[in-house]
Amino acid sequence: MSSSSARSLESDREIPYYHAVGNECELFEQAYRQHLPLLLKGPTGCGKTRFVSHMAARLGKPLFTVSCHDDLTAADLTGRYLLQGGETRWVDGPLTRAVREGGICYLDEVVEARKDVTVVLHPLTDDRRLLPLERTGELLEAPDDFMLVVSYNPGYQHILKSLKPSTRQRFVAQTFDFPPPAVERDIVARESGLSADRCSALVNLAARLRDMKGQDLEEGVSTRLLVYCATLIAAGMPIMEATRATLVEPLSDDEDVQEGLMEAIRATFG
Amino acid sequence: MSSSSARSLESDREIPYYHAVGNECELFEQAYRQHLPLLLKGPTGCGKTRFVSHMAARLGKPLFTVSCHDDLTAADLTGRYLLQGGETRWVDGPLTRAVREGGICYLDEVVEARKDVTVVLHPLTDDRRLLPLERTGELLEAPDDFMLVVSYNPGYQHILKSLKPSTRQRFVAQTFDFPPPAVERDIVARESGLSADRCSALVNLAARLRDMKGQDLEEGVSTRLLVYCATLIAAGMPIMEATRATLVEPLSDDEDVQEGLMEAIRATFG
Amino acid sequence: MSSSSARSLESDREIPYYHAVGNECELFEQAYRQHLPLLLKGPTGCGKTRFVSHMAARLGKPLFTVSCHDDLTAADLTGRYLLQGGETRWVDGPLTRAVREGGICYLDEVVEARKDVTVVLHPLTDDRRLLPLERTGELLEAPDDFMLVVSYNPGYQHILKSLKPSTRQRFVAQTFDFPPPAVERDIVARESGLSADRCSALVNLAARLRDMKGQDLEEGVSTRLLVYCATLIAAGMPIMEATRATLVEPLSDDEDVQEGLMEAIRATFG
Amino acid sequence: MSSSSARSLESDREIPYYHAVGNECELFEQAYRQHLPLLLKGPTGCGKTRFVSHMAARLGKPLFTVSCHDDLTAADLTGRYLLQGGETRWVDGPLTRAVREGGICYLDEVVEARKDVTVVLHPLTDDRRLLPLERTGELLEAPDDFMLVVSYNPGYQHILKSLKPSTRQRFVAQTFDFPPPAVERDIVARESGLSADRCSALVNLAARLRDMKGQDLEEGVSTRLLVYCATLIAAGMPIMEATRATLVEPLSDDEDVQEGLMEAIRATFG
Amino acid sequence: MSSSSARSLESDREIPYYHAVGNECELFEQAYRQHLPLLLKGPTGCGKTRFVSHMAARLGKPLFTVSCHDDLTAADLTGRYLLQGGETRWVDGPLTRAVREGGICYLDEVVEARKDVTVVLHPLTDDRRLLPLERTGELLEAPDDFMLVVSYNPGYQHILKSLKPSTRQRFVAQTFDFPPPAVERDIVARESGLSADRCSALVNLAARLRDMKGQDLEEGVSTRLLVYCATLIAAGMPIMEATRATLVEPLSDDEDVQEGLMEAIRATFG
Amino acid sequence: MSSSSARSLESDREIPYYHAVGNECELFEQAYRQHLPLLLKGPTGCGKTRFVSHMAARLGKPLFTVSCHDDLTAADLTGRYLLQGGETRWVDGPLTRAVREGGICYLDEVVEARKDVTVVLHPLTDDRRLLPLERTGELLEAPDDFMLVVSYNPGYQHILKSLKPSTRQRFVAQTFDFPPPAVERDIVARESGLSADRCSALVNLAARLRDMKGQDLEEGVSTRLLVYCATLIAAGMPIMEATRATLVEPLSDDEDVQEGLMEAIRATFG
Repeated sequence: MSSSSARSLESDREIPYYHAVGNECELFEQAYRQHLPLLLKGPTGCGKTRFVSHMAARLGKPLFTVSCHDDLTAADLTGRYLLQGGETRWVDGPLTRAVREGGICYLDEVVEARKDVTVVLHPLTDDRRLLPLERTGELLEAPDDFMLVVSYNPGYQHILKSLKPSTRQRFVAQTFDFPPPAVERDIVARESGLSADRCSALVNLAARLRDMKGQDLEEGVSTRLLVYCATLIAAGMPIMEATRATLVEPLSDDEDVQEGLMEAIRATFG
Repeated sequence: MSSSSARSLESDREIPYYHAVGNECELFEQAYRQHLPLLLKGPTGCGKTRFVSHMAARLGKPLFTVSCHDDLTAADLTGRYLLQGGETRWVDGPLTRAVREGGICYLDEVVEARKDVTVVLHPLTDDRRLLPLERTGELLEAPDDFMLVVSYNPGYQHILKSLKPSTRQRFVAQTFDFPPPAVERDIVARESGLSADRCSALVNLAARLRDMKGQDLEEGVSTRLLVYCATLIAAGMPIMEATRATLVEPLSDDEDVQEGLMEAIRATFG
Repeated sequence: MSSSSARSLESDREIPYYHAVGNECELFEQAYRQHLPLLLKGPTGCGKTRFVSHMAARLGKPLFTVSCHDDLTAADLTGRYLLQGGETRWVDGPLTRAVREGGICYLDEVVEARKDVTVVLHPLTDDRRLLPLERTGELLEAPDDFMLVVSYNPGYQHILKSLKPSTRQRFVAQTFDFPPPAVERDIVARESGLSADRCSALVNLAARLRDMKGQDLEEGVSTRLLVYCATLIAAGMPIMEATRATLVEPLSDDEDVQEGLMEAIRATFG
Repeated sequence: MSSSSARSLESDREIPYYHAVGNECELFEQAYRQHLPLLLKGPTGCGKTRFVSHMAARLGKPLFTVSCHDDLTAADLTGRYLLQGGETRWVDGPLTRAVREGGICYLDEVVEARKDVTVVLHPLTDDRRLLPLERTGELLEAPDDFMLVVSYNPGYQHILKSLKPSTRQRFVAQTFDFPPPAVERDIVARESGLSADRCSALVNLAARLRDMKGQDLEEGVSTRLLVYCATLIAAGMPIMEATRATLVEPLSDDEDVQEGLMEAIRATFG
Repeated sequence: MSSSSARSLESDREIPYYHAVGNECELFEQAYRQHLPLLLKGPTGCGKTRFVSHMAARLGKPLFTVSCHDDLTAADLTGRYLLQGGETRWVDGPLTRAVREGGICYLDEVVEARKDVTVVLHPLTDDRRLLPLERTGELLEAPDDFMLVVSYNPGYQHILKSLKPSTRQRFVAQTFDFPPPAVERDIVARESGLSADRCSALVNLAARLRDMKGQDLEEGVSTRLLVYCATLIAAGMPIMEATRATLVEPLSDDEDVQEGLMEAIRATFG
Repeated sequence: MSSSSARSLESDREIPYYHAVGNECELFEQAYRQHLPLLLKGPTGCGKTRFVSHMAARLGKPLFTVSCHDDLTAADLTGRYLLQGGETRWVDGPLTRAVREGGICYLDEVVEARKDVTVVLHPLTDDRRLLPLERTGELLEAPDDFMLVVSYNPGYQHILKSLKPSTRQRFVAQTFDFPPPAVERDIVARESGLSADRCSALVNLAARLRDMKGQDLEEGVSTRLLVYCATLIAAGMPIMEATRATLVEPLSDDEDVQEGLMEAIRATFG
């Protein structure tokens, strides 16, 4: 296929693969049924986004995902007036669409967003679950099948970028971490097509590399990078080249740190 | 119901439940009758917003709520010109609507707002109660049934974010706190459907957790989180899972603090 | 009356009550007659705004009041082009209206305004009293009955927010303070309807509370708050509740400071 | 006259009074004849603006004055497109008008302007005297009777606000100061209508007050304030009241400094 | 040819010359085939951009290059609404074009971009390879022949300008350095037309100058500058003048550093 | 001539006078012929701009000059859409015009520009010499007679304002300084009409004043100011007045520094 296909936002897909580790599926479902907003916490690439896709598909609800950043404004979530045919016409943002049509709205890395984004969520996380649109004069009431999910990585938080208690305390929360070895091996094998055996070695290596976090590395190697590595190996690339390109270079620019990582790799595969 | 219903701002609702603790209802009503603006102070989730909804319904007046933040401008309150059909047409903001139509305008977390928002309130809190709209050339006089209410959390205030005396001294003020145990138990039971007995244990636990504020926690657990917790328990979730998801994870990302909270929980329910 | 009435800016009112303390009325009138701009300095709520309203009414001139803040631009004072019917049409701001029609333009808390606001005043405070409107290409000459009045609170001034000498030295200036006890008693009684006797006790209390300024309080209690307090007492509220809501809570969030204020109150009324 | 009259920018006026102190008139005229730009330096209210008005009138050239500030952009000087009748139409700014029509463009307090304002002056201060208007695609060549004059107060300059050498070294420059006593006495008498004798006492007082600059005062009393003071005295105001309102209050908010100034006044008039 | 020719973005060119040093061509091709995004790291002027052009031509895919900077917004990549004929019409940015039409999108110096630019890449580097266009309501799925390549210079990175782990760990990565001497000699000879012999001396000189990096120089001399130097020498410029203009002046403004560089040059050619 | 004449950008002028000091004319011409971009470095007023005008005229090419500053954006160079007749119409900026029509584009004080300005130059300084216009979808290829020249003053550079190596290393570079005495004398005599003899004394004086740079002066006196001084003397102004207005006042506001300069002048002419 050499041209992309535009589809409406995230409908009729098969259920994305997700391997549960604890009670996270039950908690998500209860939060959905009891109309409680949910906060997911955890490191880069541990599967939070995949988990939300999985649950949305399982519940048969459309998913509206927004990756947050410094320049994201409340209007990017709620909507804005656009000039069309000499008229200003209101166009709903993803949050408003989720409230109007029902579905799950997922704000990834919510601490990166500007303050006005956080505040727009407050009336939606009250017991009355309202979304006021001051600019259209509407007051939308969220339907039973609306759910708000937000996430962030606690490892990044600092003073300027954190959720205020008045926002945090509006959410049921859950911490995520990398999956246990057997689960991670199955995930890597399934995504890359490499044998479970060879993936097992990669997962063991990941454990060694993750132990270097803090001293030398800002963040441990993610499951995603393990999948990249296994994919390149399955495609025939030599192990040393594949591991360097996926487990060393993306983690650090420092030559000494890179050498430390390579040593751990040589100790595993050498 | 699977689609939301848009209604005009906050009319014909039943009176939201509110359990008075002191003379706050009388003070609100006198301030309303004497045309004095009101300032509410207190921690996250102690019921300020609910109280204002309750009083608005009791007085039979429409309520216009605005959650304040850094990017909120005076124009978001008073209104702006929008381009429609090649014409710029003036559209009232929530404050202007409250002044024009009568009703209660509530600015939540007012210290978060930009300075121009605070200043726009000054002529409305003078004895003449005027709202000048420089851009339309109008000078609106507030009707007898207009009331201005603002709130903030004194625990958050710092140098850059505080009300200047010239603004504060325009308000009659009242401090709120978490309700006493028996009242809180009744609130939690009523909102969650869990028996008063089991709620009583949660309220006792809340007292212990609130004592940890300052040393380990930025803010004590709110009544809202107690309601979340009781709701999940009433839905059949094990107590330990429900308390972790509602009384531990939303309060802190720090493992040691989380462990301290879990100990208090195990001491209560273990 | 349950709906507001829009009127043109500040015409045909009775003369607002003002009790002169020194030569301020004579100075205002001479400045008006000699075409000199006037600067009023003084604490929050001591009556500067009321004084200007009083003088404007006494001189029979319309009053154009602007509360200054960080986001106020020169265009908010002078005017701007608005798009109407596919045409950009010029709309005068309040300063331009005062210059064009004659009258008193009062800029409250002028140090809060942005620098371009201050600079736009310079040609108006020259001996030629001109207002150049670069965007319309007009050069307006102020009529004999135009007067410019600005005010600020010296207690707030700091490095980033102060008038430059090149601006200050364009004004005749006057310092205001709280009125002497007998005058303040009459003002409070007149505004609240409470007997002069009971007001006298409140004014004595105010003196004690104002002595606490600097050590514990950023600013002393204003005459306005005394009027609030007397109003609530006249409406039947117990003294202790009325004083707490008007003379304690609006002044400080600090429990120790609040207790100190309450002690002074109990010493007076206990 | 009770309504203002709009006139085109600064034409057909009589020559404003100016009393030369040194060779400033000759320097201005030579700079004008030799097509050299001129920089005037000096304290607040010493007469720089009056001097430029005087010279413009003497040379029979229109004067375009711009008071500079932080928010002034190059487009405010050169011009911009405005939307009119569905068309964007170019409207010249004051600098462009002076270049197109001939005349003197005076930028008061030029160090306050943004950097792009300073840079727009560079090609005009080259030997070719060009004003490129990138947005209209024009390259205007200044006519023989165009002159650029800028001023600032060296007492205010600091690191963030100063002219770069690459800008300064494009100007012939002249320092101004307060006029010598006899000259200042004549100016004050002429402007206020007070007798030269009584003005002489005020000028002596000014010398004493100016000696306090640096220790207690940011800036010495200006000639303009002396004129204000003499005006109020001529209108019948008691000397002590007039001096306090014009020579004390506009100079400082500090009580001790005010007392020091009042002592000097009482020593002169007491 | 004296007028430029406008062509559609980067089509039908011959394959730009690139001399491979390691396995970089294989890694690029595998990443392309396995749908993995690629991150290139390395110093200024070592050939990263040329490498990407080479690979794009080899794979027969259009290349969309964006040089990143502080003011580049996500809309510059994805597209925006433009007003045309009274209608707002959507115009795709280069990233959207690459996703819609297939091809390689190369973001040069990606760490210079604003945060919202980085975040817009996240869904494209997920396994589903999506580009959501909130403003048009489209969700584009990248075709098989879409590839994302980004680069930066690790030598510039600092705290405010670095890729977050959550972004870095989405890429397969490769470090580049200056080519080995024999390769660099061939490159310089081929681009400049100077004999390989004379280029060899320049490459030796470059090694000496690169050793001065860190102590005296922020960055070593690039291959590009060697080509400039050889080009001027081939055009007949004396060696000393050519080396000063291309290997000394562009590297430093400091006289001592320049002298150090000239000494090394004299030692080579003197 | 009393009204200005608008002409298209910098065509059909005679060749501006320039006196070469070293090989700068040859280097410029070779860079032009070999399609290499050129960077000029040197102090204020030493003749960089004049040199570029000279070379452009000599080569018979139109010159597009842009004085850079903080607020200059890439769109100011490349062009933007303007709304005309209800249509947005693209208008080329000076850089785009130079690329489209051929000619020399000169960016004066390029380090003052915003980063996006610098980055827009990168593809133009690659070997392919392209100017991508993302907003029109064009990719312009520079014609043979296009040349890019930039300049800055190394004396001003500081951390926030400097060219990154990745930009610098794209240019052939040349340092300028004040011309040697005999050359400067001829330049001053030619421009001012003053006799070479009398100019010689001024040039000697300039050398003495330039020696004071660093200790007392931010920048030495420029050739331009010498021309100003000679012009005023030739017009009959006394030497002491002319030197004060052109060689003292424009260099410093500090009285001690001014006195030091005046001493050097009196030592020369006294």
